[in-house]
Amino acid sequence: MSLVVVGSVALDTVTAPAGSVRDALGGSAVFFATAASLFCPVGVVGVVGDDFPEAGRRLLADRGVDLEGLETVKGGATFRWEGVYHDDLNQRDTISTELGVFETFEPKLPDSYKATQVAFLANIDPKLQLRVLDQLEAPRFVACDTMNLWIDIARDSVCEVLGRVDGVIINDQEAKQLTGLSDTVRAARAVAEMGPRVVAVKKGEHGCLLLADGAWFAGAALPLENVVDPTGAGDTFAGGFMGYLAGADVGDPAAFRRAVAYGTVLASFACEGFSLEGLVPVTREDVEARLAEYARLISLDG
Amino acid sequence: MSLVVVGSVALDTVTAPAGSVRDALGGSAVFFATAASLFCPVGVVGVVGDDFPEAGRRLLADRGVDLEGLETVKGGATFRWEGVYHDDLNQRDTISTELGVFETFEPKLPDSYKATQVAFLANIDPKLQLRVLDQLEAPRFVACDTMNLWIDIARDSVCEVLGRVDGVIINDQEAKQLTGLSDTVRAARAVAEMGPRVVAVKKGEHGCLLLADGAWFAGAALPLENVVDPTGAGDTFAGGFMGYLAGADVGDPAAFRRAVAYGTVLASFACEGFSLEGLVPVTREDVEARLAEYARLISLDG
Repeated sequence: MSLVVVGSVALDTVTAPAGSVRDALGGSAVFFATAASLFCPVGVVGVVGDDFPEAGRRLLADRGVDLEGLETVKGGATFRWEGVYHDDLNQRDTISTELGVFETFEPKLPDSYKATQVAFLANIDPKLQLRVLDQLEAPRFVACDTMNLWIDIARDSVCEVLGRVDGVIINDQEAKQLTGLSDTVRAARAVAEMGPRVVAVKKGEHGCLLLADGAWFAGAALPLENVVDPTGAGDTFAGGFMGYLAGADVGDPAAFRRAVAYGTVLASFACEGFSLEGLVPVTREDVEARLAEYARLISLDG
Repeated sequence: MSLVVVGSVALDTVTAPAGSVRDALGGSAVFFATAASLFCPVGVVGVVGDDFPEAGRRLLADRGVDLEGLETVKGGATFRWEGVYHDDLNQRDTISTELGVFETFEPKLPDSYKATQVAFLANIDPKLQLRVLDQLEAPRFVACDTMNLWIDIARDSVCEVLGRVDGVIINDQEAKQLTGLSDTVRAARAVAEMGPRVVAVKKGEHGCLLLADGAWFAGAALPLENVVDPTGAGDTFAGGFMGYLAGADVGDPAAFRRAVAYGTVLASFACEGFSLEGLVPVTREDVEARLAEYARLISLDG
């Protein structure tokens, strides 16, 4: 396997000004793998109940996503999340979170995943992230995400993970919470001091601030005029970022700038539809065309 | 005169985590002119009382800022503003605003200013901005700023100004308020539809989104690790932007991308000290060196 992701596989019910979907494919590992599979084969480590739809499994498998690591718990319920976005799509309310089988998730890597070169530990309990790290044999590049809950209740474990990974992809609020600093730039620097050589701080509509091997890259976001549903945009960003890196020289600091650009491009597609609707029709050619658009967007020469 | 600015000339009292200053030089026209004077001669149209310090006048004149348009009202008081920044420098409280002679400001352009090629109408009553436009003979490029107050109480006049200028440099909150739209991208598009061919939406620490002749440029901000005082950063941005344009081909859409870059660089210097302390020591060579740093910051190649 070129790339392995460990995270949630969920069914999302989302309402936004443009409409709504019920029990649609979601979860960090699903958005990540859908994006990353445009670059290379991806193995998913996660858990679902036997209520998880066969069509979802097929959609992923048809994209080259390997599901050997996706455990199915007989009689269990798949993780379900329901949220409502405001007119300002930066604001959302969570209506319900039903963890189901995800509550007792214990990630086990199939033997064929253990030699993966690149891995992403999406937002799960940092104690589980540590157990995944223990199962990886000789990865070239491992990155993680986390969330406010774990920083609140398991900060030491989050720090232990950060001391063992090569990269971290988190949002600005998480970086500030983790470091106790009120500005993003100093927070990113402080996160890097906790261990990872690559820190990507996601700022939503404001793009991504990257600190890679001590050098900054300020990656703007694409100016999106028709955002339908931002759910999963951050995980999709990570999928584009890590998917690109799986085929890149991670010894070259400039590779991480390109990774941010690919992450930004993939996230922009994800926002254009509910659930995976924005991502599924996208080809690698579409990605390259939008990457060229992105390069023009940030070019001083136009 | 190459470039004329019409705006406030003030004495600022500022408290921030790094310290404080009392009755220091400030005001939109002062920050603008201090930045723009690194590029070309700048004429200031404004008003002060006879309490305005001679040292302030000398500091500006020594930089090539022409003060023929700066009216002095005998027995009048210069505009004074006092503010306090929070630990998070994005938050500030205004303690007091004493308009003084600025309350009855009536901008009169000296004859030597009327043929200026480039002009900036900083944040003043839009009815006064219109009267300045009437005094300009054949400008190549005129841009304006505004603020929430005028959008609230004189929206029609703000729109009339926008119908007559070539460019507008406003912040994201103002763009949203003016258009009634909740996202910056659509708001920028809607502002452009009101008339100006160039719309620069300032987003503070998140940089500047530019829409110039229908093409987007997403200009990131420099990652500043030692912000002392952000007062005047927006006007300084405008000074760098317009100062660069005064010597550029405004028929070339790419010129506006460079203008954003220069504005960003100048604003970054302004934030590094109280009042004009960050800007005054800066040479044109310092500007070019930081511009090169900015170009690397946003480059996909590192």
